[in-house]
Amino acid sequence: MSKEDQLIDRMRRKFPSTTRGLRTGIGDDAAVIRPAARMEWVVTTDAFLENVHFMRRVHPPKAVGYKSLARATSDLAGMGAHPRYFLLTLALPLSCTKKWLDDFLDGLALAARRFGLTLVGGDTSKYPSVVVSLTVLGEIDSGKAILRSGARPGDMICVSGKLGEAELGLLLMQRGLHKRKRWKKLMSKHFRPEPRLALGQWLAAHGRATAMIDTSDGLSTDLGHICEASGVGAKVWADKIPLVSVPEDMSILGLDPLRLALHGGEDYELLFTVPKRLALHLPSKAGGVPITTIGEITRGRGITLLGPHGGGTALQPRGWDPFRRRV
Amino acid sequence: MSKEDQLIDRMRRKFPSTTRGLRTGIGDDAAVIRPAARMEWVVTTDAFLENVHFMRRVHPPKAVGYKSLARATSDLAGMGAHPRYFLLTLALPLSCTKKWLDDFLDGLALAARRFGLTLVGGDTSKYPSVVVSLTVLGEIDSGKAILRSGARPGDMICVSGKLGEAELGLLLMQRGLHKRKRWKKLMSKHFRPEPRLALGQWLAAHGRATAMIDTSDGLSTDLGHICEASGVGAKVWADKIPLVSVPEDMSILGLDPLRLALHGGEDYELLFTVPKRLALHLPSKAGGVPITTIGEITRGRGITLLGPHGGGTALQPRGWDPFRRRV
Repeated sequence: MSKEDQLIDRMRRKFPSTTRGLRTGIGDDAAVIRPAARMEWVVTTDAFLENVHFMRRVHPPKAVGYKSLARATSDLAGMGAHPRYFLLTLALPLSCTKKWLDDFLDGLALAARRFGLTLVGGDTSKYPSVVVSLTVLGEIDSGKAILRSGARPGDMICVSGKLGEAELGLLLMQRGLHKRKRWKKLMSKHFRPEPRLALGQWLAAHGRATAMIDTSDGLSTDLGHICEASGVGAKVWADKIPLVSVPEDMSILGLDPLRLALHGGEDYELLFTVPKRLALHLPSKAGGVPITTIGEITRGRGITLLGPHGGGTALQPRGWDPFRRRV
Repeated sequence: MSKEDQLIDRMRRKFPSTTRGLRTGIGDDAAVIRPAARMEWVVTTDAFLENVHFMRRVHPPKAVGYKSLARATSDLAGMGAHPRYFLLTLALPLSCTKKWLDDFLDGLALAARRFGLTLVGGDTSKYPSVVVSLTVLGEIDSGKAILRSGARPGDMICVSGKLGEAELGLLLMQRGLHKRKRWKKLMSKHFRPEPRLALGQWLAAHGRATAMIDTSDGLSTDLGHICEASGVGAKVWADKIPLVSVPEDMSILGLDPLRLALHGGEDYELLFTVPKRLALHLPSKAGGVPITTIGEITRGRGITLLGPHGGGTALQPRGWDPFRRRV
């Protein structure tokens, strides 16, 4: 058995195949899947690269595995879809093919179980750095997927969870403070984000949301994506945004919770728009995660951030952009 | 518009979306696809990495784009499926985001048009080296996919095209001889392989083949994959193998055509098994590509290479393995 076959075999053992709908899984030239009747496929792809999305000397391999799949699956949450299958391309140094790989696969398998995903294809290569690329396939009832392009003037803008938590974790990590015991729990959103699948599926099944996106790049950028796709603008009330809690003893770091919430990436919350008459009837929580109305879609383009006393400033997209230095 | 959005926009312009079956293409969190009735999905993923699968200073970007998609699509040919959609993750240095990227996308778009593929998702990152990962989705009539596992003792073993051509190109390239005018056409299989889609689809639609694989790793390894998956062995007649033609004036390089054909990777031909009574009725060519019977499936395990005078030697898998040095 070749080294590559041995690796694929190890993967196969970590990822048991379900049979429902799956005729041939990992190990042939390709997987064969029988789609369910009256369902549509929702498909997305996402790379997770060493030294771009994670640092091997900082991020535990189990967190790398978990987060790589959580990120990709969050795109399905952003459509309201049910995750079903995923494919993995993995390139890694020979030194990572033992313990590191085992832990990585454990994290990946944990995420797969939680999200309901079956591994159906993979490709491995030797490479100087760790390169992960994931494709996730989900299902949704025909016509129910929530796109970015459906927001209409007057719709209310809602968001799940708190914003800026992942960015706070990233900043702590960049300053080498992530191991301080009392701040450790602030790292969980950065190391192990949770795609909001149940909320997305509920919104899609009940036709509640007109547009939706997962907040992977940051509120200022992701709301911009909805506005651009929908041909609308937005106003956001700064004092309504559910901000990350920054502990008082961290004040010496000079972190501004509003800034973290507006431009911090990787929260993987859901940002969605709801017709005004339906917004009043949204639950305040979904699966333990708060839902907050933070603004309103406008006819005029651009996004305005309104202060508590009414003054407005233009909100520029300053979230994550892989081809631009952070500002 | 962010730099990443600008890149995605450039991609979108190069890859026009068809509407048939596709509800939402590139540009949302995920693509939404409506499957056709009574069809199964065939899905595969494949990485194409700088300094592993190609060299940026040798391989023209257009060839990199074309070959990356041809390789992945060949896995669909190996099942007999019809290519429909693909997703791309692309990581590249900032210096490659202009002309290099344009040429790469041109090659990718050319391949996509030839194979009938629509781009439905993408992800881009900045990275020190070029990393391409492709997921390809195809369709096939329910139950018609040809797996690796169906070969039975007595089945004849057939292969399309000639074997060893891509390896010859690779060796010329490694010795810096690929630009010699009179040898240039020997490079075409290495730079621009052609997945044998029509042949694979014909075999699947007519139920002719019991097992199939595309020869990406080399005959000795790929036939081993069929034998292992099917729980059988094989004998191969050395003098029946359709060998690469090595020009006489190249004899100084000491290349052995049989060795190239047995262990050379990346030919992307189809290797398949056919019940004996059907093998006699196979066409000698399919779409201009010759089909040759090279051996027979045996009950006893292992692969035996039979010489022209009957003597047999065990054929070990010595094709491409990304985790082993070539021997």
